[in-house]
Amino acid sequence: MNIAFLGLGAMGYPMAANLSRNHEVIVWNRTAEVARRHASEHGTRFAESLEQCAGAPVVISIVPTSSEVAELAQILSGAGLQSGALWIDMTSGDPHTSRTIASDLQAKGVSFVDAPVTGGTPGAEAGTLTIMIGGAEEDFERAREICASMGTRIVHVGAIGAGHAVKAVNNAMLAANMWVAAEGLLSLQTLGLDLEKALEVINSGSGRSNASENLLPSRIIGGAWPLTFKLALLDKDVRIAASLAHSQHLATPMIGLTSTLFTAALKDLGMGADYMEVAKFVSSLNRARWPGEKSS
Amino acid sequence: MNIAFLGLGAMGYPMAANLSRNHEVIVWNRTAEVARRHASEHGTRFAESLEQCAGAPVVISIVPTSSEVAELAQILSGAGLQSGALWIDMTSGDPHTSRTIASDLQAKGVSFVDAPVTGGTPGAEAGTLTIMIGGAEEDFERAREICASMGTRIVHVGAIGAGHAVKAVNNAMLAANMWVAAEGLLSLQTLGLDLEKALEVINSGSGRSNASENLLPSRIIGGAWPLTFKLALLDKDVRIAASLAHSQHLATPMIGLTSTLFTAALKDLGMGADYMEVAKFVSSLNRARWPGEKSS
Amino acid sequence: MNIAFLGLGAMGYPMAANLSRNHEVIVWNRTAEVARRHASEHGTRFAESLEQCAGAPVVISIVPTSSEVAELAQILSGAGLQSGALWIDMTSGDPHTSRTIASDLQAKGVSFVDAPVTGGTPGAEAGTLTIMIGGAEEDFERAREICASMGTRIVHVGAIGAGHAVKAVNNAMLAANMWVAAEGLLSLQTLGLDLEKALEVINSGSGRSNASENLLPSRIIGGAWPLTFKLALLDKDVRIAASLAHSQHLATPMIGLTSTLFTAALKDLGMGADYMEVAKFVSSLNRARWPGEKSS
Amino acid sequence: MNIAFLGLGAMGYPMAANLSRNHEVIVWNRTAEVARRHASEHGTRFAESLEQCAGAPVVISIVPTSSEVAELAQILSGAGLQSGALWIDMTSGDPHTSRTIASDLQAKGVSFVDAPVTGGTPGAEAGTLTIMIGGAEEDFERAREICASMGTRIVHVGAIGAGHAVKAVNNAMLAANMWVAAEGLLSLQTLGLDLEKALEVINSGSGRSNASENLLPSRIIGGAWPLTFKLALLDKDVRIAASLAHSQHLATPMIGLTSTLFTAALKDLGMGADYMEVAKFVSSLNRARWPGEKSS
Repeated sequence: MNIAFLGLGAMGYPMAANLSRNHEVIVWNRTAEVARRHASEHGTRFAESLEQCAGAPVVISIVPTSSEVAELAQILSGAGLQSGALWIDMTSGDPHTSRTIASDLQAKGVSFVDAPVTGGTPGAEAGTLTIMIGGAEEDFERAREICASMGTRIVHVGAIGAGHAVKAVNNAMLAANMWVAAEGLLSLQTLGLDLEKALEVINSGSGRSNASENLLPSRIIGGAWPLTFKLALLDKDVRIAASLAHSQHLATPMIGLTSTLFTAALKDLGMGADYMEVAKFVSSLNRARWPGEKSS
Repeated sequence: MNIAFLGLGAMGYPMAANLSRNHEVIVWNRTAEVARRHASEHGTRFAESLEQCAGAPVVISIVPTSSEVAELAQILSGAGLQSGALWIDMTSGDPHTSRTIASDLQAKGVSFVDAPVTGGTPGAEAGTLTIMIGGAEEDFERAREICASMGTRIVHVGAIGAGHAVKAVNNAMLAANMWVAAEGLLSLQTLGLDLEKALEVINSGSGRSNASENLLPSRIIGGAWPLTFKLALLDKDVRIAASLAHSQHLATPMIGLTSTLFTAALKDLGMGADYMEVAKFVSSLNRARWPGEKSS
Repeated sequence: MNIAFLGLGAMGYPMAANLSRNHEVIVWNRTAEVARRHASEHGTRFAESLEQCAGAPVVISIVPTSSEVAELAQILSGAGLQSGALWIDMTSGDPHTSRTIASDLQAKGVSFVDAPVTGGTPGAEAGTLTIMIGGAEEDFERAREICASMGTRIVHVGAIGAGHAVKAVNNAMLAANMWVAAEGLLSLQTLGLDLEKALEVINSGSGRSNASENLLPSRIIGGAWPLTFKLALLDKDVRIAASLAHSQHLATPMIGLTSTLFTAALKDLGMGADYMEVAKFVSSLNRARWPGEKSS
Repeated sequence: MNIAFLGLGAMGYPMAANLSRNHEVIVWNRTAEVARRHASEHGTRFAESLEQCAGAPVVISIVPTSSEVAELAQILSGAGLQSGALWIDMTSGDPHTSRTIASDLQAKGVSFVDAPVTGGTPGAEAGTLTIMIGGAEEDFERAREICASMGTRIVHVGAIGAGHAVKAVNNAMLAANMWVAAEGLLSLQTLGLDLEKALEVINSGSGRSNASENLLPSRIIGGAWPLTFKLALLDKDVRIAASLAHSQHLATPMIGLTSTLFTAALKDLGMGADYMEVAKFVSSLNRARWPGEKSS
């Protein structure tokens, strides 16, 4: 099948490569050079302009936010997106904007599913992502087949926007779990404890989370702070979760506080920071330093 | 070795039974009847009065709070606790009180380690607890041998009070992780999503925690709300973590909010509630109901 | 001047009466009976249908939320609202919706200012309201003359939406001030203090606020809990302030928490509750009771 | 009457001067030079050593925290403090420590009242302080007469510790009121509003507080940031209020958050900062700047 793939970031690049093993893929990227490289490395077709993608029966987008998706959809609609086409939006977007995009596309006879992913760049490369899909049953079925080239667990979570909602909530949970772990560990360190031993206990105990088991130790103890996922993107997701709860008129104090704290962290650490550097913000707020923070 | 075991609650009862396989154990419990039953079921010796335990070279306590430990220590000190004895306090206590108790015991030549556990009643019964020990190196070595009858992972985490601190922080993390998961899942449910599918995705994703994987699903979806660990005890632990951070003059907004929320939940749910019923408090604050909550 | 006045609630009713001393006023209300009564009591003209108001060169609206304003504006636009007319929206609305309404009206040649008020029903009756106006300079000048019949302090605070923003922030401050006062006073009461004496000191001290001086004492001590301003409306305003800060990507932890707490209070107290009953929610969360709460 | 006055800080210095108009006063200060100056300026007697103060029938202390009061009391007890003497502690102390000090003094036949003040250095100089007193009725009566030289409103708020509790709660309210005002005003400024006009409206409205009326405008707009009261001391008071609520097992989310935020602010601004500089912390968290902040 001909598939247009829009957005070759850290996730999109390997996902499009996996997809091209089973499908004819035309790739587009805001910075064209990346798309050209993808074409030469993975045998995909390079789209010189976005409009060239309008003819594809399936369009996949994975870009920073739903605002970009809305722009892309508007441009391709104008450029002749086909009635009967399916748009699979794998962005970590927001449910509200997605419903608007879907309704605009529907007016052109184009179906839409939101299909954000979890699993990070390792999962994107290995083709083992978890993909959570919101949309009509029949659109999900079409999307599932295509997504099978990129992920191993493909779940239909609900109507349009449901995929984005689950992703946002998952990331808000991640954000809260890592923050509270950082606070607790900082308190133990201040008391003079060895963090390695404390983490050994906690990670065999009831307080453990993905954050405490797999994410924090190599950073705060090991001192490796790679850029794996931008804090600016996690902040966006937490804000989507907070907005969702707000628009539902729910009292969610913990998601609310998490959103505030990540916003403060982002302003302190800057747009280029990795999400796990939030642990450094927790320590710097307290004029402390992790073993894995270089003195400077 | 002769060991006095004080406190036969849900955890202490099976722990003392495991201990008695390798040691002579004399058991005491505030409600004597329980101790009498333990003696007849597990071949331990029944202490009619607390004072009978004063002669043991090793005393183990596991009671609700450090206040009770302080009382027990004072009574046994008065009743002739031996110089050279070792007191292993397996209560989920507070570091501050523990240091006071340790210093009072030291004046009598008695050593003290704090040695709280994690692993729940299943771990207590199977003898597979994780035990986190605070105290001097040589006291830890003595305690380790004895604790080996009750647990499989025995970690020396630091000086006196360090065990209690790690336990409190672990439980504060558990508390925050379960609360934020409840908020997020409630928001997804309000949006009309199927919680089972949402949890499937989250639990293969980055937001997962022990709370989301092992604790919440059987309650909020399955409707089984067994009493496994009293909310009053978890609230106590979270309050210890909050107090610790406060006394260290740390800014820990998430632990602070968690402590406030659990206190409000405890007042609403009552002293007899299970800790996981906090999920019901999150829903009732929002005039909602989990699939696993019976209409009444 | 002919003025159409839409919305005869607790505030609008006396405001329209004051206005009619200097202007020809046609009044409309969702429940027509109230408008009919106003006409007979204050010599205003009764609008049988909303469309009758379309011809007025000045329209004033004061309704529950900006959504209702948007509806009214749409209907009157359709019914022939005159180019050159001025719409003065005295609702406690939200800046975002107001900008949309203003832009829709502008397309018809109609000017818009947002002009929410503070001063309560006493100020509305006495014509001594403070009125904060957002809009273009020339529109403000036109609005000022008209508003002079209803208020004594009329301030041009900025562009369209600015009036609503100031009102929302004022009310978020009120909400936070009253909540923290309730928490502090509850703590003093729990310690056994006489609240009257505590308030005497605080209200001559640095912690005083309009809430502690003028609002709380007669309720929590005096036991008078009149319905003066619906909690549902204050909750709406706090939510507007929280939304504004969120959309500005600001870290405002206190406004965020206040919004969460007021939402929880509203769900507990119900849509009919007065805003000051929030003090009862603070006490009931803590299983306590103010002197001014009847045992039931 | 002979009165020993301990602690000649920004408040104590003028208070002792006023006291010396009606009484024989011996002054002591940690830095002796200040006491010597007081003696020469105000005709008081200079105590070369603390012990010289032990003979006074009335001792007044006003020092940074209750820990210092406890030390002073212990030293003077050892130096022969008279049975029948009255200790008036005007420190902003903590109720818990005060009860311990009072009980130690009582064992020597010495009475204790806690008598913190509000009114700032202007009130201290003019002798118009508000003084809130905790203690037994008869001790209050003795203290009242003496305090009349320093303040005009002298209120018996409850038993020992009650004065400190009211002071801590007053200051926690002040802290919350000023923080929420700073958040709200920052949001309005970000929207492009003129803060002077916004404050004019708010300060004639329901959201006003001592903080918004008398404290913030000259700083955030006027750019005057004098050192009037150390943030370190306000942080201490907020922490006392938070501790009090914690020890009462109350759910007080707003006081809890305020305490966390002030601690973070103190760590950022440093021990020498004025309390109102917290407004700068609110802006710097958000990478913003008040009109009254110099660019640097």
